[in-house]
Amino acid sequence: METSWVESANDSKTDFPLLNLPFGVFSTSSLNQRIGVAIGDSVLDVRACAEHGLLRTLDPAVQHACAGLTLNRFMSQGRRALSSVRTRLMEILRVDAAPELRIKTERLLHRMSEVTMQLPAAIGGYTDFYASIYHATNVGKLFRPDNPLLPNYKYVPIGYHGRVSSIVISGTGIKRPSGQAKAADAVSPVFGPSRLLDYELEIGFLVGEGNVLGEAIPISKAEDHIFGLCLLNDWSARDIQAWEYQPLGPFLAKNFATTISPWVVTMDALEPFRATAFERQAGDPQPLPYLNSEPNRQRGGIDLTLEVWLSSQRMREMKQPPARLSKGNAQDLYWTLAQMLTHHASNGCNLQPGDLLASGTVSGPLKESAGCLLEMTQRGAEPVQLPSGELRKFLEDGDEVFFRGYCEREGHPRIGFGECRGIVLSAS
Amino acid sequence: METSWVESANDSKTDFPLLNLPFGVFSTSSLNQRIGVAIGDSVLDVRACAEHGLLRTLDPAVQHACAGLTLNRFMSQGRRALSSVRTRLMEILRVDAAPELRIKTERLLHRMSEVTMQLPAAIGGYTDFYASIYHATNVGKLFRPDNPLLPNYKYVPIGYHGRVSSIVISGTGIKRPSGQAKAADAVSPVFGPSRLLDYELEIGFLVGEGNVLGEAIPISKAEDHIFGLCLLNDWSARDIQAWEYQPLGPFLAKNFATTISPWVVTMDALEPFRATAFERQAGDPQPLPYLNSEPNRQRGGIDLTLEVWLSSQRMREMKQPPARLSKGNAQDLYWTLAQMLTHHASNGCNLQPGDLLASGTVSGPLKESAGCLLEMTQRGAEPVQLPSGELRKFLEDGDEVFFRGYCEREGHPRIGFGECRGIVLSAS
Repeated sequence: METSWVESANDSKTDFPLLNLPFGVFSTSSLNQRIGVAIGDSVLDVRACAEHGLLRTLDPAVQHACAGLTLNRFMSQGRRALSSVRTRLMEILRVDAAPELRIKTERLLHRMSEVTMQLPAAIGGYTDFYASIYHATNVGKLFRPDNPLLPNYKYVPIGYHGRVSSIVISGTGIKRPSGQAKAADAVSPVFGPSRLLDYELEIGFLVGEGNVLGEAIPISKAEDHIFGLCLLNDWSARDIQAWEYQPLGPFLAKNFATTISPWVVTMDALEPFRATAFERQAGDPQPLPYLNSEPNRQRGGIDLTLEVWLSSQRMREMKQPPARLSKGNAQDLYWTLAQMLTHHASNGCNLQPGDLLASGTVSGPLKESAGCLLEMTQRGAEPVQLPSGELRKFLEDGDEVFFRGYCEREGHPRIGFGECRGIVLSAS
Repeated sequence: METSWVESANDSKTDFPLLNLPFGVFSTSSLNQRIGVAIGDSVLDVRACAEHGLLRTLDPAVQHACAGLTLNRFMSQGRRALSSVRTRLMEILRVDAAPELRIKTERLLHRMSEVTMQLPAAIGGYTDFYASIYHATNVGKLFRPDNPLLPNYKYVPIGYHGRVSSIVISGTGIKRPSGQAKAADAVSPVFGPSRLLDYELEIGFLVGEGNVLGEAIPISKAEDHIFGLCLLNDWSARDIQAWEYQPLGPFLAKNFATTISPWVVTMDALEPFRATAFERQAGDPQPLPYLNSEPNRQRGGIDLTLEVWLSSQRMREMKQPPARLSKGNAQDLYWTLAQMLTHHASNGCNLQPGDLLASGTVSGPLKESAGCLLEMTQRGAEPVQLPSGELRKFLEDGDEVFFRGYCEREGHPRIGFGECRGIVLSAS
């Protein structure tokens, strides 16, 4: 029942079994961009499925939305529409699908290696949160040794607006940014290529149905507004950041590039991996009522493993495989996705289909679970050694960074996110 | 030569003489949204001008762009295209235009009172700066008495990303937001309607031609990328702001609504009012080289007067006219528009046609030139008295705030911005 006639989807190592079916937007050398789902090592052309009548049991508006150039219109149809399409695609791809259905569908599959992935949505707004208390504490110690975790942290899901225009899809090269930085012992700043370039391991989540300006989204409905999740690298120039970020927050330190993985994993696919929300310690305040609910406490978390991998130029020359730098879990987030979304709309701010929200760096309590080099190397004080013998305080030109994310559990196929990848290019 | 056959454009009090011709997007009860220019008390339908061949001396791509639903495509054509359209429209509207031209054009005019203004562009990104050193110092004193102006201020044009989805056109009602706030003497915050709602008087400027991701915009070219200016009200909930803004900057305190005026005044129209940039005081650093140029020093400023007006519910009931709360000037900005734009793109961040940048609150050195109530009332310590006898620490429900902006000089018609208006609605 849980296997597919697409045999690669039944491989225990695939990120994309039948029970995942993440959505994305792809093009090929002969096809314009369109919606697809990942299945094993293939991509099913969802637009073509709609055009060939394979989705005709569904609401006509939903079928129409499946033919969009991006996921936005589909997202606006709401979570039930999403579930209906995914359920229907599962029927089509199941090992026991009717032979004529399978024959029709086989023609609409593309090898993943032969498609080009695009951004999944026209992203109207991008908001980055700061939901890992370990990250906030570790970074706080470095930037404000006397005052690491600010008094608002345990009440407010801290977030800020990011830059939409520089969000790029996995695989895009990342040019080292230039900017102002001031050495601690210098009188004035200088402008030049950033010397402290970093990655930040994050979870992104895309808004499905939006809300009207002026109307909040109650915590009980928040997940109905989440279309799905991806991986996100919030590339950060730490030297620019340290100099510019007060009093209005990070700006040029982060808006030169943000990479997202192309496949959007649905909340339905993640359902078996839901977990309790972060457990408040004795003495910690409970969330204010608008951010609190029993279902959120019981099932607001996600048992999602996240990994950072790096391959340097020299490692590739030496034919060494990439090295894993860290491994963390989304359960280490102090705030749940639902709490971030509800907080965002709590003042009436209107979220729209395709908006991107992100968790902020996902770090755990250990050095091995630090989601960025700033934390892992203690701002360069404790460099990381690579298999090539090279040391890394921060990223060097030619370093390729990629993230992996997956949910695993005995008796359930692995639900994976694919990769979020980028290579650092020289400043000019 | 500088008068128009549209007689209202020759009135010395109009904001929209022949030498202004600001661009906007309007609709009527029978016409879909389209590009127009303001002339006196009328709006000329630019799309119809293109369709009726009145612009046929222009580049075909530019004519095509004039028929867009928003200004974005027109903006992408660059500053020279903009000048060519404006120059042609000036010929058509001039008092000495050929009679047949005038007859054709008259049919394409609408009374301003009969059109509905829309947002001028599909805004992809909104960035708010903090360019008034008076504002930064005044607010700094209130939020950080020991440390009002941070060490980076005189080097970095501080800015942060704002929210695009909640940008609304002048005239839209502004619902009082709710959010977390913590009283100084309270142990924990409470969630409820903001009690410290404020306006912020700002200049907005819209990007014309963009830049490619990874490529900076030199200061010498910065103004070629500015399509034009508008007025902007960055509504702010001071109680939410004080509690949430550290360490990543303002978020829900500001993203519930931002109002812009509908008419985009071109740099060409402002040319006669260009002024020296803000004069650095002895001991102040010169801008770093990437933000410095002789033309920017000589002509980077704009002699633009800005006014804040308020009318309370009771004042309207008493038939009192609105009261002017303050009067400032854009010359009080420490950073020029060109410096803000060049800084924004200096790390390779890609600006796109229709992006909105804003100056931050424009305040001058005097209480009468404070651009927000936070400064004017010293966080409520010194309330403002209205003509009705009412006192205002911050905005009350029913208060209508509007901004005016204009350039005046002996021997030149007034170049005005129209209004940026909004009324405060109750929280629910």
